[in-house]
Amino acid sequence: MSKEITARSQDYAQWYNDLVLKGGLADYSAVRGCMVIKPYGFALWENMRDELDRKFKETGHQNAYFPLFIPKSFLSKEADHVEGFAKECAVVTHYRLKNDPENGGVVVDPEAKLEEELIVRPTSETIIWNTYKDWIQSYRDLPILVNQWANVVRWEMRTRLFLRTAEFLWQEGHTAHATAEEAVAETVQMLDVYADFVQNFMAVPVIKGVKSPSERFAGAVDTYCIEALMQDGKALQAGTSHFLGQNFAKAFDVQFSNKENKLEYVWATSWGVSTRLVGALVMAHSDDDGLILPPRIAPLQVVIVPIYKGNDQKAGIDAKVEGIVKELKALGIRVKYDDNDNSRPGWKFAEYEMKGVPVRIAIGARDIENNVAEIARRDTKTKSSQSLDGIAQHIRQLLEEIQDGMFQKALDYRDSHITKADSWDEFEKLLDEKGGFISAHWDGTAETEAAIKERTKATIRCIPLNNPQEAGACILTGKPSKERVLFARAY
Amino acid sequence: MSKEITARSQDYAQWYNDLVLKGGLADYSAVRGCMVIKPYGFALWENMRDELDRKFKETGHQNAYFPLFIPKSFLSKEADHVEGFAKECAVVTHYRLKNDPENGGVVVDPEAKLEEELIVRPTSETIIWNTYKDWIQSYRDLPILVNQWANVVRWEMRTRLFLRTAEFLWQEGHTAHATAEEAVAETVQMLDVYADFVQNFMAVPVIKGVKSPSERFAGAVDTYCIEALMQDGKALQAGTSHFLGQNFAKAFDVQFSNKENKLEYVWATSWGVSTRLVGALVMAHSDDDGLILPPRIAPLQVVIVPIYKGNDQKAGIDAKVEGIVKELKALGIRVKYDDNDNSRPGWKFAEYEMKGVPVRIAIGARDIENNVAEIARRDTKTKSSQSLDGIAQHIRQLLEEIQDGMFQKALDYRDSHITKADSWDEFEKLLDEKGGFISAHWDGTAETEAAIKERTKATIRCIPLNNPQEAGACILTGKPSKERVLFARAY
Repeated sequence: MSKEITARSQDYAQWYNDLVLKGGLADYSAVRGCMVIKPYGFALWENMRDELDRKFKETGHQNAYFPLFIPKSFLSKEADHVEGFAKECAVVTHYRLKNDPENGGVVVDPEAKLEEELIVRPTSETIIWNTYKDWIQSYRDLPILVNQWANVVRWEMRTRLFLRTAEFLWQEGHTAHATAEEAVAETVQMLDVYADFVQNFMAVPVIKGVKSPSERFAGAVDTYCIEALMQDGKALQAGTSHFLGQNFAKAFDVQFSNKENKLEYVWATSWGVSTRLVGALVMAHSDDDGLILPPRIAPLQVVIVPIYKGNDQKAGIDAKVEGIVKELKALGIRVKYDDNDNSRPGWKFAEYEMKGVPVRIAIGARDIENNVAEIARRDTKTKSSQSLDGIAQHIRQLLEEIQDGMFQKALDYRDSHITKADSWDEFEKLLDEKGGFISAHWDGTAETEAAIKERTKATIRCIPLNNPQEAGACILTGKPSKERVLFARAY
Repeated sequence: MSKEITARSQDYAQWYNDLVLKGGLADYSAVRGCMVIKPYGFALWENMRDELDRKFKETGHQNAYFPLFIPKSFLSKEADHVEGFAKECAVVTHYRLKNDPENGGVVVDPEAKLEEELIVRPTSETIIWNTYKDWIQSYRDLPILVNQWANVVRWEMRTRLFLRTAEFLWQEGHTAHATAEEAVAETVQMLDVYADFVQNFMAVPVIKGVKSPSERFAGAVDTYCIEALMQDGKALQAGTSHFLGQNFAKAFDVQFSNKENKLEYVWATSWGVSTRLVGALVMAHSDDDGLILPPRIAPLQVVIVPIYKGNDQKAGIDAKVEGIVKELKALGIRVKYDDNDNSRPGWKFAEYEMKGVPVRIAIGARDIENNVAEIARRDTKTKSSQSLDGIAQHIRQLLEEIQDGMFQKALDYRDSHITKADSWDEFEKLLDEKGGFISAHWDGTAETEAAIKERTKATIRCIPLNNPQEAGACILTGKPSKERVLFARAY
C-alpha cells in the first residue's frame, strides 16, 4: 500500500488526521485554522446536507440567506450572548486596499477605515433577530420557520480538521413563535430530526438530552443536544437545538400583536449542525485501513474492479460490467467501474478501502465463465462469491445490511461504554481506564461541575431526556442529588 | 391591491426595487451594501443553483470548498490580477473582541492584531491556485475540474439588490489542464452551459462573445461572456468564463511533469455566475403588476384559489382540489392550494401576480357543478375556462407553453434591439432614443473604447462568437475596422 496510516492504538489523533488527509476528505490551507474541503469530502458533506435539507423542508422550514457580517454593536445587545459567547472572532476594520508604491503589492488603505467594525458571523442570532423585527407585526406573521446554510468563523486557537476549524460550514435554523409551548415543541422537533439523521444516515447512535446551565448556548433558556461516542471513548456533541425564550426578541425589540391585539415579545429557537459531523463520522466508524462510510451517505457506494490479462479478457469483463452498472444505477445505487489501467487491482483495493467505499466487486475472466463475482464488504472485511444473476438486488440488500450493521456495532460499543460510578475513585478510574459516558450523581451546582472539569477534564455532556429520578450523593461533594447525569471527556 | 408598484415607464429603477422588495425576494439589511435573501427569493436561487449544479456534474465537475479568507500577499502574486482587480475588499485585521469595561459592550482587542491581514475573498483564483500547487505533480493529476458554491465580498460603493451587492452568492469553477487546447475547450464548454441554462431555464436570450482586452477579467488571457438585454434597453453580463492561460500557474509555481517527464506550467480556466442572475430574471420578464417567473425555475408553478361562500361550498371544492393537487404533484409540478380564509380571492390574485406564479387556477362552487376551472396565465394575463378532466396534463402543457412564450417574447424584444450604427451621430441617437445593443465598427484600441465610454457610458459588451468579418470605419475615429462589435449601456 502506498499510503501508511498510523494505527489507532498507537496515536488516535494522528490516525484521525491520516484518514482525513489520505482519505481525500480535506487538506490544511494557507490560512491558519481554515481547511480546504476536497471533492470527496465535499461530496460526503453534500449528501449529508441534502438529506438534512429534505428533513427541514418536510417539517415546514424554508431556506433564506442573511449577511456574512454583523455590526459589532449587535453582539452586545443580548446580555448573556455577549457575556458567554467566545470573543475570538474575525474583525473587519477596513474596506479597501491600495497599491504599495514603495514595496510593490498591496497594503491596507488607512483612509478606508469603517466607522463601526464588522464581525464575520460566528452565529447569526443577532443579525437575524434584527431582521425579524421588520418581518413580524402580528400573530399572522408567525411562525417564521427559516434555516440558513452558511459559513461561520470562530477564531479557535487550537484547530483540528473538521472537528474544530476557524471557518466551518453549517446550517442554522432560526424560528419565531407566538407561544413558549410552540417554541419548545420546535426545539424538541429539531432535536429529533438531528437524532434521526445522525442515527439512520450516519449510523451513529446518540443520546438526547439537555445541557447543564454552564454548558448552555449563550442567550438560551435551554440547550438540547445529541451526544455521540467516538472509538477512543470520548464524547462528541453532534448537534444542538436551543430554546431561546424571549431573550433575543427583547434584545432586538421584536413584538407582535396577538389575537387580542395586545403586544407580546416573540419566542425563539435556534438549532445547528456543522461540518464537524464529518469528523464524528470518521471517528465513529473507521479502522486502521481507512475510512468506513455508511452506505446512505457514502459518495460512492459500490466500486467494480476488473481483473484481467490482455484486451480480450478486458472486453469480456467490460461487456458484463456494463449491464451490472446499469442495473445498479437503475436501483439508485452510486457505482463506479474503475477500469483505469494505470494502477493494479491491489492498489485499487487499498485505495477504495482507504476511502471507505462500502462494497467492492472484483470480476476476473474466470468469474465471467463461472457467472460469479467476488463481493467484499468494507465494514467487516468479509468476502464472498456471488452469482451474477440478481447481483444488483443482492447489492441493494447488502448495502442495507451494512448500514444496519454499522449502526449496531457503534450502538453496542456505545452501550457498553455507559458506566455508573458511585464514588470519586471509581469515577476517575473509569475515565482513565475505560472512557465513555459515566453516569453519576452531581449536586447540581456550577461550582462542582467546574471543579470536576478542572480535575479530570470531564464535562457534563447532558442530562438525558426522560432521565430516571433517583436519589443519590454527588460523586465529588457527597451532597444530595436527585438524578444521575452523563459525564465524559469530549471533543 | 395592497402593494403599489411604481410603473416601469415612470421610474424603471424604482419599479425594479419595488418588485424585489414587494415580491418577497430580498430585503435591505443593517449592513451597508449587504442584502437579506428572503425565503421566496432563496427558493428561486435554489432552483437555479440546483439546475446549474446538475449541469456542472454532468460535464464532469465536482464541488469543493476553499477558505473564505485570502492572505493579503496572495493578491499581489499575479501582476495583472492585482493591477486590474478592484481594490474594494473587506479586510480582516484583528481576531478578537473584548469586553469594554468603560462603556459596556465589546471593543476590538488591540493586542489581537493579525501579522498579515486577511481579505474576505472577492474571487478565489489565488487561494485555489496556491492549493493546486499541492495537488498537481504529474499529468496523471490533470485535469482538475472543481467548482465552489460560495459567498464573496466586493466593497461596492453603489449597491442595488441582487445586481450589485457587497456580499453575493455565486459559484466559481476553477479547472486545471495539461494543454492550452483543453483549457480553451473547457472555457467554451462552460460558456455553453451558462447560455443553455439562462436561455432554457431563465427564458432569457443571450449573446455569446468575448470581451475586449479592457473588459477582460484581471489575469485572464481571454474572457468569454454571455450578454442579456433588459426591458429598459440596457445590457447585463449574465456570466463569464475565463481562459487564464498559464498566468496563475506561473504566479503560484504550479508545474506538472508531462508524459515525456518534462516540467510544464498548468493551464487554467475559471467561470462564474452569481445571484445577479436573479436581478436579470426580474428585469427581463416582469411587468407593472409584479414578477413574471419562468415555470422551470419558479418556486411555485401553480396556485389554486377556491372561491366559495360557506363551509358546504368549501368542502365540495376541497374534495375536488385534493385530487387535482395530487395529479399535478405526480407530474412533478410545484403546486399550492391556498385556502387560507384570512384573505379574499382578489387579494390572493394580486399577491400571486406580484410573486409571478406562472399559472393560477380559480375554482368556485358553480365551476365544480360545470366540471371546469378558470385558468389564468401570469405572462399574458389571459384567462380561459378549462374542463377538470385531464386538467393536470393541460397544465403541464401550459407550463411549457409559458416557458417557450416567455423566451420568444424576450427574444423578439432582444432581436429588435440589435441595431447597426454607421456614424457617431447615429450611435449616440440610438443609445439615447432606442437603447439595446448597437452593432458598430471600432478601431480596436483601448483609447477609443475609453473615449466612447466617457462620452456615452456605453461599453463594448462583447465581440460575438463567429462574428462576421466586415471592413468598415470606427464610429468614433474613422480608423479602419475589420468587424463590428456590440456596444450598450449596461448594468
